Amino acid sequence: MTEQFLDVQQTPDAGVFRLHITRPICVGPPGNVFMFGGVGLGAATIAAERATGRKVIWSSAQFISYARVGDTLDLTVEVLSAGRNVSQVRVLGTDAGKLVLTVNAALGDREGLPDGQWITPPDMPRPEDCKPRPLWPVQDAALMDRLDVRLAPGRYGAGPLDGTPSSDGRMVVWIRTKENAPVDTSLLAIFADFVPSGLASAFGRRGGGNSLDNTLRIARIVPTEWVLCDVRISAASRGFGHGAIHMFAEDGTMMASGSQSAILRFMD
Amino acid sequence: MTEQFLDVQQTPDAGVFRLHITRPICVGPPGNVFMFGGVGLGAATIAAERATGRKVIWSSAQFISYARVGDTLDLTVEVLSAGRNVSQVRVLGTDAGKLVLTVNAALGDREGLPDGQWITPPDMPRPEDCKPRPLWPVQDAALMDRLDVRLAPGRYGAGPLDGTPSSDGRMVVWIRTKENAPVDTSLLAIFADFVPSGLASAFGRRGGGNSLDNTLRIARIVPTEWVLCDVRISAASRGFGHGAIHMFAEDGTMMASGSQSAILRFMD
Repeated sequence: MTEQFLDVQQTPDAGVFRLHITRPICVGPPGNVFMFGGVGLGAATIAAERATGRKVIWSSAQFISYARVGDTLDLTVEVLSAGRNVSQVRVLGTDAGKLVLTVNAALGDREGLPDGQWITPPDMPRPEDCKPRPLWPVQDAALMDRLDVRLAPGRYGAGPLDGTPSSDGRMVVWIRTKENAPVDTSLLAIFADFVPSGLASAFGRRGGGNSLDNTLRIARIVPTEWVLCDVRISAASRGFGHGAIHMFAEDGTMMASGSQSAILRFMD
Repeated sequence: MTEQFLDVQQTPDAGVFRLHITRPICVGPPGNVFMFGGVGLGAATIAAERATGRKVIWSSAQFISYARVGDTLDLTVEVLSAGRNVSQVRVLGTDAGKLVLTVNAALGDREGLPDGQWITPPDMPRPEDCKPRPLWPVQDAALMDRLDVRLAPGRYGAGPLDGTPSSDGRMVVWIRTKENAPVDTSLLAIFADFVPSGLASAFGRRGGGNSLDNTLRIARIVPTEWVLCDVRISAASRGFGHGAIHMFAEDGTMMASGSQSAILRFMD
C-alpha cells in the first residue's frame, strides 16, 4: 500500500487535525510560494472523513488567506448534523488562529439506490502518447514536481499561449502522481484545482487565476493510475472566471466533478 | 420597477436580515411543505449583497435542516475578509437559533479585465412554442404557482417519466416569474435549485432528490424576461446524484452556472 499524498496528522483532540506546510505541497514562483488551494481542500476532506468515519459526497472550500511554508494548518471539524446515512460538517482551517480556509462538506453512503452515468470521457490518446507539460511553469515550490501531467498534441488546450482565445474553453489532461499515491478524495481535490489553469488555455494567455473556491463532488472512486481531467471554462466577466471539471478513471468511470470561480490574473 | 421576488427585510442590526417563511416561497406536497432550498440561497445572497454593498461572484449553500411555514429565517452576515475589490462572507440562516443553512460567498467587481464566454445555449424553440409543465407536480405550497416553466416538445427531458433513463441526462427549460420580478442573483439561485428535477428526467422516474447544497456562479446578468436553464446530470452513485446547470438570457448570454449534489429520492 502506497502512502496518502497528504500527510494529515491526528492531534490529541479527536476533531482536530494538522498539516505542516512544506514545499512539496506548495506552488508559486520565487517570492510567492503558497499552499496550493486544492491541498487545503484535500486535507480538509481527510479530516472530515476521519472525524465522521464516512466518505465525502460533496465538499467546497472557500479560500480566505494564504498559508506559507513553515505555517501549520489546523483543521477543526464541526459536525453540523449527523443523520443515519449522512453527516454534514464544517471544517475550519487556521494557522495560529488566522482563518486560511473554510470547508463545507456532506459525507455518507446509502444502499439500494440506482447508479447512473450520463457523461462520457473526451476522446483522448493514452497518456503514453501525450506530451508532458507543467501547468504551472516557473516554480520555486515542489508540488508540481510530484505530478505527471500530459496533454494530447494539438488538442484541448495544447496550443501555444500566444493571446489567441480558445474556441471551446476546454483543457483536457491526464494526471498521475509520480509517487503512485492512491487516488482518493483528497487527490481528486488537488486535481480539481486545475480549473484556473484552464483559464490560461481559454484566453490563450499565461496565468489564469487565484481560486476563490474549490467545489468537489464525488460519485465513486475506482482503482486507476491515471486520472483524465476535462476542464471546461464557461465564462469570464467582471474580473472573474468560472469553470468546471470532470474527472474520469482509465476505464471511463466519472469519479468526480468540480467547479470553481477565480480572480483573473495574467502574467503576460 | 417590479418588486424583488423575495421579501428580505432589514433588521436594526446592519448585519442581520430576515425572511418570513410563507407558502409563496415553499414547495412540497400536503403534509410536507418546506422552504425551497434555492429560496434560502437567494435570500442569503440578498443579505450578503446588502451587507457588503457588492455583487455576488459565487455563492454556495449547505442545507442543514428544513424551514417550515410560520418560521422566521434570520440571516446573519459575517465578513471573513474585505479586500479592495472582493469581500468574502459567511451567512448563517437560523430559525429561533436552529441552523437551517450556511452559505459561503465572494462578492465584488474588478475593472479592466477581459470578458469571455465559451459555452453556448442549447438549440431550443422560443418559450411561446414550448409547453408549460410543472417540475414539482403535486403541491400544497405556492412557490411553483409563481413560476412559468416551459419544456420543448419531444426534447431535453420532455419524455414521460416511465422508468426509461435518459440517454444524455439533460433537462432544458425556459423559466420566468409570472409576476415579472427582476432577474437578479436571488432569482437565479432559485432557478439553480432545479438541478434535482433533472435527476427525475435522467432516471425517467418521478422524484429526484433533496439538495445537500446549491452552488451558484454569476458571470454577468443582462436584461431578460425568460431564462434558459440547461441542466445536465453527470452521475449518480452511493445514493446521491450530481449535476450542473447553465443559465442563459434570451440573447444567449450565459448569466450564471450552478452545481449541486442531492440525496436521491423517488416517488414511484
